[in-house]
Amino acid sequence: MMRKALVTGGAGFIGSHLSKRLVDDGFKVTIIDNLYTGSRRNIAELEEKGDVKFIKLDVSEAKAEEFAKENFDEIYNLACPASPVHYQATPLKTALTSFYGVLFSLELARLTGAKLMHASTSEIYGDPLLHPQEEHQWGNVNTIGIRSCYDEGKRFAETLVSDYIRVYDIDARMIRIFNTYGPKMHPQDGRVVSNFIVEALEGRDITIYGDGSQTRSFQFVSDLVEAIRKYMRLDRAKVKEFFCKNNLPAPVLNIGNPSEYTVKELAAKTLEKLPESPSRLVFESLPGDDPKKRRPDITLAKALLGWEPKITLDEGLDKTIEYFRAKSNNKISID
Amino acid sequence: MMRKALVTGGAGFIGSHLSKRLVDDGFKVTIIDNLYTGSRRNIAELEEKGDVKFIKLDVSEAKAEEFAKENFDEIYNLACPASPVHYQATPLKTALTSFYGVLFSLELARLTGAKLMHASTSEIYGDPLLHPQEEHQWGNVNTIGIRSCYDEGKRFAETLVSDYIRVYDIDARMIRIFNTYGPKMHPQDGRVVSNFIVEALEGRDITIYGDGSQTRSFQFVSDLVEAIRKYMRLDRAKVKEFFCKNNLPAPVLNIGNPSEYTVKELAAKTLEKLPESPSRLVFESLPGDDPKKRRPDITLAKALLGWEPKITLDEGLDKTIEYFRAKSNNKISID
Repeated sequence: MMRKALVTGGAGFIGSHLSKRLVDDGFKVTIIDNLYTGSRRNIAELEEKGDVKFIKLDVSEAKAEEFAKENFDEIYNLACPASPVHYQATPLKTALTSFYGVLFSLELARLTGAKLMHASTSEIYGDPLLHPQEEHQWGNVNTIGIRSCYDEGKRFAETLVSDYIRVYDIDARMIRIFNTYGPKMHPQDGRVVSNFIVEALEGRDITIYGDGSQTRSFQFVSDLVEAIRKYMRLDRAKVKEFFCKNNLPAPVLNIGNPSEYTVKELAAKTLEKLPESPSRLVFESLPGDDPKKRRPDITLAKALLGWEPKITLDEGLDKTIEYFRAKSNNKISID
Repeated sequence: MMRKALVTGGAGFIGSHLSKRLVDDGFKVTIIDNLYTGSRRNIAELEEKGDVKFIKLDVSEAKAEEFAKENFDEIYNLACPASPVHYQATPLKTALTSFYGVLFSLELARLTGAKLMHASTSEIYGDPLLHPQEEHQWGNVNTIGIRSCYDEGKRFAETLVSDYIRVYDIDARMIRIFNTYGPKMHPQDGRVVSNFIVEALEGRDITIYGDGSQTRSFQFVSDLVEAIRKYMRLDRAKVKEFFCKNNLPAPVLNIGNPSEYTVKELAAKTLEKLPESPSRLVFESLPGDDPKKRRPDITLAKALLGWEPKITLDEGLDKTIEYFRAKSNNKISID
């Protein structure tokens, strides 16, 4: 019998790539998405082939008891606006989606015994005091600032996952996803890679916030999806033993690409790849609580999964530019 | 017409003192409490005189729409087990109470325009990297440890309050309460002051976790209640202006007593006051993530409220010992 997977936020950027991969891996996939930042275009191919079942639903309104009947083998909780532009537009919606999404997923896992992968984020480290970030660090996050809706919502979600494991002994795993880019990003995502590409393609000036010396590490989406699947395929006993040995009270792994670039370098690289673009660099002031630096330590992921990122920034940018170019040539409207 | 106040957790240690004070200040007080750590004995006098209306209700199940009909002028959200012994016994219940309690209070404030005081905690600072703690510090908290249910639950609550203010312009104020003690503490509260007194009165050994060199600052409950009322009585425009000027994105004040004592000093002082006690000091290992030091910087509270703690540890201990002694003489059962 085919295994069944549920992906919340499955029509989003990362969710749609993961759903495709799950189909390729032989899963019957159900997607829940409210299409707030996701789009059915991202999963159009999968839907046409009948590979996924799409349910337009806000995860805040999903009832675990109802989904329990479906007997999913695996649950992937990815539902939550993840870019500052989107998550700050409706901060309460962001915070509550993070909360209700993880609670729904945890309850479903508890009721059915399904395996759960919860997508956490490097944002739980906030504006980190130590570099690179490793999983034992506790983070430096403002509880009352404008990024808090996402950061604290995701921190609280980690807490709930950890306590569900301790209290109900469910099989849940967490990843802290660092900056990820690739085809199917929302054109108005607002983060640097898509911003710069879209601005360069449209011939608008490339806006750098701050002086551009802040660094980021960029992970291509296929590397992330590979890590997620490797992690999820591991035997539970092995996972438990590994985190116990590493003195972490819950199974959480950084997944990201440790190669570090300044935002200015990224802008230059993007323009280099689009020599026809008339765009110039312009500088604007930094928004509140913007992290100055963030880079994953992926020692644990390497050790546990035998994984590391394979796609260089050059290759990844090429694929992403190709996607946005095709999109703009086809005059696909922004959705 | 009499003003009306709602106190969630009003049968608890702090809640019952606050309810008494609100009655003295001329309020008609309604108390919601599930009596998980609170007790009706704490409010027996108030109930006998008909000064408060008690509703046995878990705040997680309270519906803002129903309470909206009561037209409360002020809401005080104090519902949440606050001592590690209690909050770690049922971590999910703790985390969810913190969440649903603040959401209920915020919704009620939004629906009715009532003024809201949300009780946050020094635990949002976690195991602080800087001393003393002032309100601009972001804290050092583990998202996945055994204290996280309380710490992250309370952090997330601060975020929700801040975003409700930004989105709905409600009149909410927050305090971060530091270690508080006094009569009506739960005898099994598990924190040092009540532990030491109860152990000394019962002639059991006084247990110190770690070597006793960790420091705490102890605030007598009447000082806290005074600060809460002063803060709540301030004009909203003044509150806004003050926090804006002090570069804090939401109105949050540390309320505590900055006098610092080592846990060992406290034990010695307690025994000194109970010379008849045969208790000796014994040492046990520290539990997980226990903060080594925590002391409030109350510069902002002093400036805004013209307030500072008045009760010395000696006076406060005397009153607290008196309470527990009377309780044990009357053989009041522990509830």
